Amino acid sequence: MTRVAVIGAGPSGMAQLRAFQSAAQRGVAIPEIVCFEKCADWGGLWNYTWRTGLDEHGEPVHGSMYRYLWSNGPKECLEFADYSFDEHFGKGIGSYPPRAVLWDYIKGRVEKAKVRPWVRFSTPVRMVTFDEASQQFDLTWHDLEKDVMGTERFDHVVVASGHFSTPNVPFFPGLDTFNGRVLHAHDFRDALEFKGKDLLIIGRSYSAEDIGSQCWKYGARSITSSYRSRPMGFHFPDNWEQKPLLTHVVNKTAHFKDGTSKEVDAIILCTGYKHHFPFLSEPLRLKTDNRLWPLDLYKGVVWQKNPRLFYLGMQDQFFTFNMFDAQAWWVRDQILGRLPLPDFAAREDDCLSWRAREETLTDDESMIRFQADYVKALIEATDYPMFDLEGVVQTFLEWEHHKHENVMTFRDHAYRSVMTGKMSPLHHTPWKDALDDSLEAYLAEGPGA
Amino acid sequence: MTRVAVIGAGPSGMAQLRAFQSAAQRGVAIPEIVCFEKCADWGGLWNYTWRTGLDEHGEPVHGSMYRYLWSNGPKECLEFADYSFDEHFGKGIGSYPPRAVLWDYIKGRVEKAKVRPWVRFSTPVRMVTFDEASQQFDLTWHDLEKDVMGTERFDHVVVASGHFSTPNVPFFPGLDTFNGRVLHAHDFRDALEFKGKDLLIIGRSYSAEDIGSQCWKYGARSITSSYRSRPMGFHFPDNWEQKPLLTHVVNKTAHFKDGTSKEVDAIILCTGYKHHFPFLSEPLRLKTDNRLWPLDLYKGVVWQKNPRLFYLGMQDQFFTFNMFDAQAWWVRDQILGRLPLPDFAAREDDCLSWRAREETLTDDESMIRFQADYVKALIEATDYPMFDLEGVVQTFLEWEHHKHENVMTFRDHAYRSVMTGKMSPLHHTPWKDALDDSLEAYLAEGPGA
Ligand SMILES: Cc1cc2nc3c(=O)[nH]c(=O)nc-3n(C[C@H](O)[C@H](O)[C@H](O)COP(=O)(O)OP(=O)(O)OC[C@H]3O[C@@H](n4cnc5c(N)ncnc54)[C@H](O)[C@@H]3O)c2cc1C
Ligand SMILES: Cc1cc2nc3c(=O)[nH]c(=O)nc-3n(C[C@H](O)[C@H](O)[C@H](O)COP(=O)(O)OP(=O)(O)OC[C@H]3O[C@@H](n4cnc5c(N)ncnc54)[C@H](O)[C@@H]3O)c2cc1C
Ligand SMILES: NC(=O)c1ccc[n+]([C@@H]2O[C@H](COP(=O)([O-])OP(=O)(O)OC[C@H]3O[C@@H](n4cnc5c(N)ncnc54)[C@H](OP(=O)(O)O)[C@@H]3O)[C@@H](O)[C@H]2O)c1
Ligand SMILES: NC(=O)c1ccc[n+]([C@@H]2O[C@H](COP(=O)([O-])OP(=O)(O)OC[C@H]3O[C@@H](n4cnc5c(N)ncnc54)[C@H](OP(=O)(O)O)[C@@H]3O)[C@@H](O)[C@H]2O)c1
Repeated sequence: MTRVAVIGAGPSGMAQLRAFQSAAQRGVAIPEIVCFEKCADWGGLWNYTWRTGLDEHGEPVHGSMYRYLWSNGPKECLEFADYSFDEHFGKGIGSYPPRAVLWDYIKGRVEKAKVRPWVRFSTPVRMVTFDEASQQFDLTWHDLEKDVMGTERFDHVVVASGHFSTPNVPFFPGLDTFNGRVLHAHDFRDALEFKGKDLLIIGRSYSAEDIGSQCWKYGARSITSSYRSRPMGFHFPDNWEQKPLLTHVVNKTAHFKDGTSKEVDAIILCTGYKHHFPFLSEPLRLKTDNRLWPLDLYKGVVWQKNPRLFYLGMQDQFFTFNMFDAQAWWVRDQILGRLPLPDFAAREDDCLSWRAREETLTDDESMIRFQADYVKALIEATDYPMFDLEGVVQTFLEWEHHKHENVMTFRDHAYRSVMTGKMSPLHHTPWKDALDDSLEAYLAEGPGA
Repeated sequence: MTRVAVIGAGPSGMAQLRAFQSAAQRGVAIPEIVCFEKCADWGGLWNYTWRTGLDEHGEPVHGSMYRYLWSNGPKECLEFADYSFDEHFGKGIGSYPPRAVLWDYIKGRVEKAKVRPWVRFSTPVRMVTFDEASQQFDLTWHDLEKDVMGTERFDHVVVASGHFSTPNVPFFPGLDTFNGRVLHAHDFRDALEFKGKDLLIIGRSYSAEDIGSQCWKYGARSITSSYRSRPMGFHFPDNWEQKPLLTHVVNKTAHFKDGTSKEVDAIILCTGYKHHFPFLSEPLRLKTDNRLWPLDLYKGVVWQKNPRLFYLGMQDQFFTFNMFDAQAWWVRDQILGRLPLPDFAAREDDCLSWRAREETLTDDESMIRFQADYVKALIEATDYPMFDLEGVVQTFLEWEHHKHENVMTFRDHAYRSVMTGKMSPLHHTPWKDALDDSLEAYLAEGPGA
């Protein structure tokens, strides 16, 4: 029997499980699927951990999410086409749910699909090699509970291990003798640790914006954010200042490119993540920076150098959950032999034409449209339910507009679902005042209800 | 030609390089030695890094040492028998040097031996397997600078990757919602971060004692240390309190087994380390807790299940550098075929008899004597210069005595070298007042000189 290994049970890996299960449900004969998940539960980044650095088994902590994190885009942009928020919660909910609520949602679909037995939890993959003779993969896993390792053969491997987990940590002179705390966003957990503190944030992207906003919300004394390329372009509160790039640190004083300086208690490096696959042998290993169109992946998923290997979710992301679905359904159909696989050169041409377009993109709108077109092209080839992608693009544009109006209130808006056609209700409490981020508090009928 | 891989260029791996080089120097034909070191420089734990969690390449940070760390035992107990402190520094120095001074010392010997070209830096070993047919090892490495992986064959492998690097991080209820900083000793870097803070330390061993002492020295408001088995047995300053084990945390309040509680700003888990070898396949992987006699290692170094594989420095340590030497010289001679290798059963008997004695040990003196006897037995089999082990035991006992007199002044004492017979000078500044831990400050003629 054909055997397929899926590495990771985050949103991408879970989409792959659901894709195969949905075919099985329709009577299609599917391969044996074994999903290896390093953590004790599924959900990937959405499965919060208080741990940082190395976990209870000595493995690098996967989680990069933190307490009080709320969705940074409208949930209407990431909704599954085969499992709506309404179906899951049995009622309408606000558009920017906190982490626990989205985690609950993605778990709901795969629990309904009953695919949990396909997953081996607490089992990181240590090494994958390819055997030319048998055209199969040797995959070495480590069962952390039993503390036993083993090697098994697979016909296909789907890498769904995420790429927002291994921090990119640049050095600035003086960081090594800074007399306060230096951390990367990956290790940020509780904003209350920084209450009353003067905080320096390096970076200008989503983590910088959101971690700064959180620390502001939970009472940091001041936020200084320092950019490499350009300022963030939002109107920030009075105690939030933007500075050009940090040049060096002396004891607790940060110095910037414009000659100014500021004494700070902590430095948070919101400097992005690395694609990192220490478990893949050289011929199988994707090397790319974080962008909308990594090379060497036909249709964004097939490993050019060995089309028995697939990658999910390796692109930078405006679209998330439903893009992973589009990819997972496409990969499923490729493995099932339902989709043609052109020769290397034709695949490369296709891949390079997407890259050529990617290189022309200049603003967020063009990037969102690019990724929408990609998702659409994938869905057209499979039985994943097509949805109104232009509608989603419009929702993204509204979101951007609301952020530029006021970056501390954009989460107080609501949007219409393209899946159900229904308008979402406004949440009962403004984000700024909602200090309790639990599922219970969010789903309650009103503040303190 | 026979090929030997050494994994790690910390004190143990460096001892292995020097052992082979010293044989070559005497005209012995030695195998090809390739040492793989994950970090960009050698020295292991002594090669300080400001980084925590994952490093600039996404690898787990090896370093567990912190700023302002001074030797916690007399340097006279760890001195190399073939390279004295006097030879290295050209003069007598105090008995408890800071980290940078000891790092300089261990580098001095291998620089003199000119073995640096044997080391491939920034090259972690990813996986080692054993091929039964050829009786050789397949070792997969990753060159992080070039970002390229490869696999090579070796006849012998020496694992010298340390075991005080992968933190043991227990969970206590409420840690996941603690509103301050929680960290393991492995991630502790700068005591000044905790100036003016109320600090909780979990554990009662060397890390607990030393990190607590440092934070006290650099101005923490209070230290509370919490033990599982028994208190530390030292007289601590007035703002340092010992408590039974932490039971749970509520927001920032820590609750203890005796029903008392304390509000704290940070929690440092000084709860020890794990032997962790994610790069070894199952049949090659040592599993042990931290103790003086791990099982499955004949003479403490030969992997029972495959005697072509060796481990250095896997024991808990009173003796360090000169014990690693004793092991490395013995392993060298085993590989060179100069030492007999009894059959499995005889090796097992020998191993179990050490374990049986280990299990009778009750106090520090008996443990120190046990390890001294082990070191002596190894040295007797090789040409490593024998030294006065009873003299070293006596120095350890003096050290213990000085600690019990006053744990904040024990580092102000000096001892006699058993290698040179010379008494070390008293350091120019009491440890408590020496805030600058640099090599320059330590080697200067006087405070501020
Ligand atoms: C701080 C932060 C906030 C975010 N917020 C949002 C948001 O609000 N909305 C949104 O849509 N997206 C958000 N994202 C984007 C996020 O990337 C996606 O939502 C989604 O989690 C990606 O899913 P994934 O399955 O591809 O990867 P992950 O979620 O990273 O899951 C990968 C899984 O693979 C496992 N794994 C890794 N290595 C191994 C191994 N060797 N063996 C076995 N298992 C392994 C991991 O344990 C993990 O479970 C956020 C990302 C970050 C970092
Ligand atoms: C906080 C702390 C303080 C200490 N203070 C003292 C002291 O004062 N005096 C004393 O005598 N001892 C002290 N020790 C004990 C210490 O264990 C020894 O001094 C010594 O560093 C052990 O040497 P090692 O070579 O066995 O291991 P390490 O020093 O840990 O070196 C192991 C090396 O292996 C490398 N490595 C690991 N994995 C890989 C891989 N997969 N591939 C390639 N390379 C790899 C690492 O990068 C590292 O360089 C201290 C330990 C700690 C944790
Ligand atoms: N739900 C939420 O609220 C939330 C919160 C945080 C993150 N996220 C998600 O997490 C993912 C990752 O976001 P991210 O912001 O961590 O990474 P990112 O989008 O890749 O951005 C990386 C940032 O680091 C900066 N940078 C990189 N190297 C630098 C250096 N050497 N010096 C200075 N700056 C440097 C970049 O600067 P330049 O742009 O100037 O080059 C950029 O601003 C995204 O998918 C995001 O949506 C979501
Ligand atoms: N140069 C220096 O000054 C210096 C500084 C720090 C460390 N070191 C070295 O570093 C090495 C490691 O020392 P270490 O202290 O980190 O480790 P260690 O000696 O192995 O001690 C581990 C400690 O953790 C405690 N512990 C483990 N699990 C626990 C749990 N679940 N709950 C509560 N307590 C728990 C143990 O308690 P019990 O004993 O009660 O069981 C013990 O006190 C040693 O070689 C040491 O010499 C040197």
